[in-house]
Amino acid sequence: MSAEKTEKKSVYKPHAISGFPEWLPEFRAVEQRWMDHLRKVFESYGYCSIETPAVEELEVLQAKGEVDKEIYVLQRVHADPNEKNEARLALHFDQTVPMARYVAQHFSDLTFPFKRYQMQKVWRGERPQLGRLREFYQCDIDVIHVDSLPLAFDAEMPAVMYEALAGLDIGRVQVRISNRKILLGLVDALGIKDSVAVTRTVDKLEKIGAPAVAEILARELGIGEGAINAILQLASIKGDASALSAIIPRNAQMEEGLKELTFVMKALSHLPASAAIADLSIVRGLDYYTGTVYETALLDIPQFTGSVCSGGRYDDLAGSYINRHLPGVGISIGFTRLFDVLAHYGHIKPGPKTPTQVLVVLPSEERREAAAAVASTLRNRGLNVELYHAPQNVKKQMEYANKKGIPFVWFPPFEAGQGHEIKNMVTGAQDPVDPALWKL
Amino acid sequence: MSAEKTEKKSVYKPHAISGFPEWLPEFRAVEQRWMDHLRKVFESYGYCSIETPAVEELEVLQAKGEVDKEIYVLQRVHADPNEKNEARLALHFDQTVPMARYVAQHFSDLTFPFKRYQMQKVWRGERPQLGRLREFYQCDIDVIHVDSLPLAFDAEMPAVMYEALAGLDIGRVQVRISNRKILLGLVDALGIKDSVAVTRTVDKLEKIGAPAVAEILARELGIGEGAINAILQLASIKGDASALSAIIPRNAQMEEGLKELTFVMKALSHLPASAAIADLSIVRGLDYYTGTVYETALLDIPQFTGSVCSGGRYDDLAGSYINRHLPGVGISIGFTRLFDVLAHYGHIKPGPKTPTQVLVVLPSEERREAAAAVASTLRNRGLNVELYHAPQNVKKQMEYANKKGIPFVWFPPFEAGQGHEIKNMVTGAQDPVDPALWKL
Repeated sequence: MSAEKTEKKSVYKPHAISGFPEWLPEFRAVEQRWMDHLRKVFESYGYCSIETPAVEELEVLQAKGEVDKEIYVLQRVHADPNEKNEARLALHFDQTVPMARYVAQHFSDLTFPFKRYQMQKVWRGERPQLGRLREFYQCDIDVIHVDSLPLAFDAEMPAVMYEALAGLDIGRVQVRISNRKILLGLVDALGIKDSVAVTRTVDKLEKIGAPAVAEILARELGIGEGAINAILQLASIKGDASALSAIIPRNAQMEEGLKELTFVMKALSHLPASAAIADLSIVRGLDYYTGTVYETALLDIPQFTGSVCSGGRYDDLAGSYINRHLPGVGISIGFTRLFDVLAHYGHIKPGPKTPTQVLVVLPSEERREAAAAVASTLRNRGLNVELYHAPQNVKKQMEYANKKGIPFVWFPPFEAGQGHEIKNMVTGAQDPVDPALWKL
Repeated sequence: MSAEKTEKKSVYKPHAISGFPEWLPEFRAVEQRWMDHLRKVFESYGYCSIETPAVEELEVLQAKGEVDKEIYVLQRVHADPNEKNEARLALHFDQTVPMARYVAQHFSDLTFPFKRYQMQKVWRGERPQLGRLREFYQCDIDVIHVDSLPLAFDAEMPAVMYEALAGLDIGRVQVRISNRKILLGLVDALGIKDSVAVTRTVDKLEKIGAPAVAEILARELGIGEGAINAILQLASIKGDASALSAIIPRNAQMEEGLKELTFVMKALSHLPASAAIADLSIVRGLDYYTGTVYETALLDIPQFTGSVCSGGRYDDLAGSYINRHLPGVGISIGFTRLFDVLAHYGHIKPGPKTPTQVLVVLPSEERREAAAAVASTLRNRGLNVELYHAPQNVKKQMEYANKKGIPFVWFPPFEAGQGHEIKNMVTGAQDPVDPALWKL
């Protein structure tokens, strides 16, 4: 007995693992409400859900060459060294590569254009800090088609995401849209060879500012002043479709990009004024984007830096896995990053600690069956109901409701022949009630 | 150009990874419907959602000593050998250990009794076969209390799970319930020392039959014929609370077990006759169960062997992580195992390939805005609506609806002044319609 007690004292004290967030029930309730809302919006535009395993073969994740994401590889604790060599499995670091693999693998079973959403955890072994996690949810929508993909979908992405984010009570949301062909066309017209370096530098505009970008373009890439001015002037253009009409295209690529971006902006004219703007400073660092690109800012939460929802058009993402040309366009919410940063700054109002709407009081062991019947009746009418677990005094039972934030307490008859009463825990009002009729 | 073409032919052909299931959209839709239903039932009894990270520190998973589950440990591809030694992280193999850790870690922030549900993927590096996967969802409910936990919760578990499973269209479900104190009491009364070996042998009854169990008890454990008969006779008892009244307890432990089991069975008397039965052959292999134990059979699907939903009462699961006595009771659905086996045997009717309920035809590029407005109106009324992406001929647009199984096609005016029509793709009927009034 005393040996057991001694043993019990040497407990392993659990603690949070840095970069792997978990929430108390009252915050998890908000996370669930948010995800339910996103799902509802995605489905209202006809996106179907898919889920891929948490792992892919390492070879799939690296099909386009080494990736700069820190990948977690799996290893079994008791791996048998004599076992035949199995493929190395690794946790996916985003949902784009798995989606491309999924589409290639199930190509003949899917109907195109294929519209899917995906809301799963992804993992990156990066050094954790606020806004940079090792495990986080991404919420993505993508459309993939065969051979060519109508531009209408480039316009659908920001419309869906605006609606999705606007429903989360996080203030004003602004999707910023550009088309890489415009900047790439200009770079080509200016006779600059290293377009990748230019786009990666312009991508830093918001972070480091125009003078610093100009300096890198001049010193590191050896670009002349006139060309730098032309690039920075283009990147400074912001506004609606009409702001684009001032740009004079210097070649066919620029013209195509302008035409596409104008189409997208016009198709978004039904959104509120600041919801979607053309912003030619948006280029996205990733090289696989070939046309439209998106970023999203939270206008009312200055502590949230960077883009909460980004994406773009890609020409042939599944090309490593299938001999078909499958262009697509997609956009992704860094869900947990958003949630984590907003929670950190106190922008998330905790939800209820329990889904229970009504606590039915248990008057006595003898009245258990009758009280359980009330709980069951209410449950059958779609309510979330707990029957208190023991016939303790009523004060104690109400204390439980109070602590968990249960909004209503139900008093079934304490003796046969008596009536039912319900207490509103917010107003304190207590009234007679009919279990067959009461509604929330 | 030709170099690129040659390169494109050497694609990596993706294939399924054994043990890591993924579904086509029409099966994923069913999986989602099932999970939504489970969640709804769990919440209707006041269980709140929690989610823990996919990983725990290996030390946490092994706090009770080496586990027999095959654990996956994480390793970063580019781990820096000079980095200070980080704790080894491993994917969780169930949700019980993480839940115990969660409760211990957040003890002071939770309200008890703490009722939670958890529906996450877990991972086990076992050799995959039908019904044994490496990645799968578990759907658990547990109640944890401080110091002592009322028996009412032992009765709530099977009631919730019966309702949850009965809503899945998988035929009759039967929860089989026992209490380990009854068998353990008998074993003690019979003077048998190795009670663990006896329970593990009796646990094999359904699989290997009574004669084989008797032989193991006799040969391997050296138990006499009379004692074996007493054990097997006890284990053969099945029925409702009245079947238990025939058992004569031989000591206080047996008596306590019988009293508890009788309480649980009486509390379940409101369920349909075959929904919950006392079955004294149920013991569960896991040693941490101390009282009530559950298994669940699918009566109408003989191909599904073993238990679809199991659990029991445990006295002190979080004892490795906190110096408090936290008894609990829980039950868990092996969700993906159920889904995978049923899909394999053709018991799952695929759902729709898309959530879209109405496809709005795009008459022409000029009419895009008007058609988009119709789609938007319908969406605002809670419908899932796609606007066809290009002004192709109507036959082509209807073919798309047909292929994806979209039930309604909407024809907005092809010219200003015309009316709207809607076509029911199942009946073929096409009728005039008002976008402001139409309901599904």
